[in-house]
Order: sequence, then structure tokens, then C-alpha cells
Amino acid sequence: MTRQELIKTIRTKKSFLCVGLDSDINKIPQHMRGDKDAIFNFNKAIIDATLPYAVAYKPNLAFYEAGGIKGLEQLKMTMDYLHSLNDKVFTIADAKRGDIGNTSQQYAKAFLDPNGDFNFDSLTVAPYMGEDSVTPFTVYDGKWVILLALTSNKGAFDFQFMEDKNEGKHLFEKVLESSRKWGNDENMMYVVGATKADMLTTVRAIVPNSFLLVPGVGAQGGSLTEVCRYGITSECGLLVNSSRGIIYASGEKDFAERAAQEAQKLQCQMAEELKNHNVI
Amino acid sequence: MTRQELIKTIRTKKSFLCVGLDSDINKIPQHMRGDKDAIFNFNKAIIDATLPYAVAYKPNLAFYEAGGIKGLEQLKMTMDYLHSLNDKVFTIADAKRGDIGNTSQQYAKAFLDPNGDFNFDSLTVAPYMGEDSVTPFTVYDGKWVILLALTSNKGAFDFQFMEDKNEGKHLFEKVLESSRKWGNDENMMYVVGATKADMLTTVRAIVPNSFLLVPGVGAQGGSLTEVCRYGITSECGLLVNSSRGIIYASGEKDFAERAAQEAQKLQCQMAEELKNHNVI
Repeated sequence: MTRQELIKTIRTKKSFLCVGLDSDINKIPQHMRGDKDAIFNFNKAIIDATLPYAVAYKPNLAFYEAGGIKGLEQLKMTMDYLHSLNDKVFTIADAKRGDIGNTSQQYAKAFLDPNGDFNFDSLTVAPYMGEDSVTPFTVYDGKWVILLALTSNKGAFDFQFMEDKNEGKHLFEKVLESSRKWGNDENMMYVVGATKADMLTTVRAIVPNSFLLVPGVGAQGGSLTEVCRYGITSECGLLVNSSRGIIYASGEKDFAERAAQEAQKLQCQMAEELKNHNVI
Repeated sequence: MTRQELIKTIRTKKSFLCVGLDSDINKIPQHMRGDKDAIFNFNKAIIDATLPYAVAYKPNLAFYEAGGIKGLEQLKMTMDYLHSLNDKVFTIADAKRGDIGNTSQQYAKAFLDPNGDFNFDSLTVAPYMGEDSVTPFTVYDGKWVILLALTSNKGAFDFQFMEDKNEGKHLFEKVLESSRKWGNDENMMYVVGATKADMLTTVRAIVPNSFLLVPGVGAQGGSLTEVCRYGITSECGLLVNSSRGIIYASGEKDFAERAAQEAQKLQCQMAEELKNHNVI
């Protein structure tokens, strides 16, 4: 999906909601767990229920890999289902990959190749190994690398805020700056955690127009209003993710209905923000 | 495999060679490519040929994921085969994972769980997301996290050598220092590229006894002698990896024989180093 298509989808749906499919066999409703395609059935129900309110879906690879090959078959079924929808959505492989050049090429093939098993629109990538670990993900037309800049977890403070001796810049700022030479606003986004919303001003000073994937609203405690205050652009420029707050809103038979309610609640807030900031 | 078992294996085999199974369908010998289990057949032949000379095998996940679910089935067959050997070897999932705590738990389950599809001894992890992204990998007895410190690629210079404003320390030094609170010499190793052998003195000042996984000898240009000069300990403390230099030593029908020759050549050099440094 291109940048213009993404922006159009956001304006049409009045939403920049990404639903995180962190689907765990031990957390989905008890009555579904016995089925051999339990995770796919759960995902399908969540997708069907939240599709009017969401522009993106983000399966986190760890939850599928934890089920071994069978878990990845559930992911493939989920991706096949997403691709079959008339209502096109942006898909994110939350995989946090990154390796030396010839190896990153293989990861790019695994997740972004239109002829591969998954054919995601985008992939999250960790920047520790630098340029040649990132650029192989930018070669597919209309596909995206989503680079970790400032993550939503406590461990983000261990290294991402390290200050550079010469310029006093934080590591995450150096990642943002360096990456401008590796990609552009049409093929590179950044992860910036909602729990660090006050840092969005710093982020926007470096990447004023880039899309940001913002996790941490909901279960992790981030605020949508704060994220928009510092991060929204005239073309939105945000994908705000909620995983557990939506998919596990209920652990009972009404899980899909409750997921829809939570997604709608966020979409309504997002529509307000889009209006307030003159995006729509 | 515990640290003591690993050291014993090294002393018995007079080798600290790790064979990297970066098995690519487009690079294995032409005559094998048609078979549905081509990658497994290739790996099995390489393993059988190199087993007298190697103490560890390191499939890089990217090469299996690039083949989609079928690719991962080849990995499972490879791991099942390695587990079936009487000659026990150390297995490394070169996966470079790392995510927020509850997600890293799922990756740990995917790769290290004895009841999972793969049951590796260890997993490589990227440190960008800090403590809670790393510690979930240390919970399985006799299993290891191998943390990226200083990688062998050109992009390593982008961030890993960033100097801290307060202490003047490099990012990779801070990663090494911080990680000492997250694990110990029984469950944590580090990736240090052979192409940066002169930095091993700095590394050893922080982690004097830890095992280091050293890629970059061979195709990437690192020197075994240099690595040993600065990195070897009284218990060896090194696993030196070669991937392409061994598995693609020939692209013809003699590929396994040539792989064995290359592995033996390295093992002979390693036996010399182990003697010279009084490890055996």
C-alpha cells in the first residue's frame, strides 16, 4: 500500500487505528481453544468485528512463532484472509528483524515478497546493526520498513536515550537522522511509543512528515490525545496501535462484540482528533 | 547444553567451530534443488560431513523464513536431525529477536522451549529495546541468550561505536556492561564480529569469561589468529562461526566433501590455538 493510499484510507475511515493481533492460545476465549484453527478463527472474528474502525492490522510474529509451524500456518491463513477483503487494510509484520545485508534480504523476501507466504505491506526492523541491515527492506515497491526509534517499554531507557559525546544527541535521534539517508517518507516509518509522547516533538523535528507507528496506547498506559498533540501532521502521519485493549476486551463469547466496541471508541476519538487537527 | 558441557565438547573435539547453516535454495548445488526437502538434504549432508570438526551449528532463521512455512519445515527437520545425533552439538537460532517483555517470552518459547518445534540451545538477541526485551530468554535451564554486542558488518559503525556523553563509553560497551545484570556466564554469550578483532581487548575487559560467538571469519574477512590473540580464555570462551566459507566451498556434487575439508582446515588451526593458549 502506498503512502497516498494509506492517507486516503485514513481519511475515508476517519481512523488511524492499527489492531495488534498478539493472539495467544492461552488468552483467547476458552470455548475457542480446542479447534485446530483456533488462532485463525479468533483473528477472523476480531478482523470482521473491527474492520469498520481500523486501517491497519499488526500480527506480532512472536505469538505465531510460539506455536511453531502450526502457529505460522495460522498467520498465513490470517494474511490470506486480510488479502481477500474488499476493504483494503495496511498490514504490518511486527517482527523486529535486522541482520547483515545478505541476510536482511532474506527477511525482506520472507515478509514483503508479493509471491511469498505472507506478503505484508511492512515489517518492523531493529536498527542496532545499522545501514546494511535496514536498506534491503526498502526494495519492494509500495512496501515499507518500520524502524524502531523509541519503543514503549521500560527497557527503552537502557540505550535509546544514551547521549552522544559530540553532539549531545540521543541514540534514538541518531537512528532517526541516519535513517533519512536509507529511505524516504514513501517507504520508511518509525516506531515511537505512546508512553514517550512528550518526545514526539523531538521526533517530529527530525522526521516531520514520516508516518509513525505508535504502540503503547491502552494496556501500556499511553494517551491518544498526547500522541496527537505532539505527533499528528496535516496528512495524519500516525498509526496508533492497540493490541490487548481490543482483542482481549472480553475473554468470553462476546469477545468480538467487545473488541468492536473498544475499536469504535478509539475510532471516535481519532475522528475528533483528525477534525481538530484539520486532517479531515 | 550447559557451559561445562560446551567446554568439554570443545576440549574433546579440539575445536570451537560453529557451522552457519545459511542454506539458500539458490546457492545449494543445482542437482539438489528439485527435491521437496532440498534444504534439509543439503543441511544433513553438511552436518554429516562437518560433525567431526564442529561443536556448534547455527541456522540463520532468515534463510528458512524466506521459504515460508515450507522453509521452516526444513528447519524443523534439521533440528530433529541434530537432536538425534549421538554426538551432541550446541545449537544456535540466529534469529536476532527482541521485543517488549511479554513478547520476548513468546520468542523464547518459540525457539528454546524443550517441547517446541525447534528446541535450540540458544538464540541471538538484539539489545536495542533493553532489559525487559532480553531477560525473558534467560529462564530456560541450560539455554542461552546470545546478545549482539559488536557485529561484523559495515553498519556496525553506524551506532555501536557511538560514544556516551558522560563516560565516553561506546554503545557496545554499555550493552555489555548493562547485560551483566541481566544474565551470567552460564546463560549469556555475546556476538563480537571477527572483523573487529582489535576490539576484543575492550570486550574482554568487561566480560572476561563469557563465551563469545564470533562471526566474520572467512567470507567476511576476519582472522582466526587475531580473534584468538585477543579473545581466547583458559576455557576457550569462543565459538567461531563460518557459514559461506564452508557450506558453499563447492557448488558441485563434491560440496559435502569440500565442506568437510574447509571445516577440518579450520579445526586444525583451532587445535593449534587451543594448544598455544593452554586450553588443551
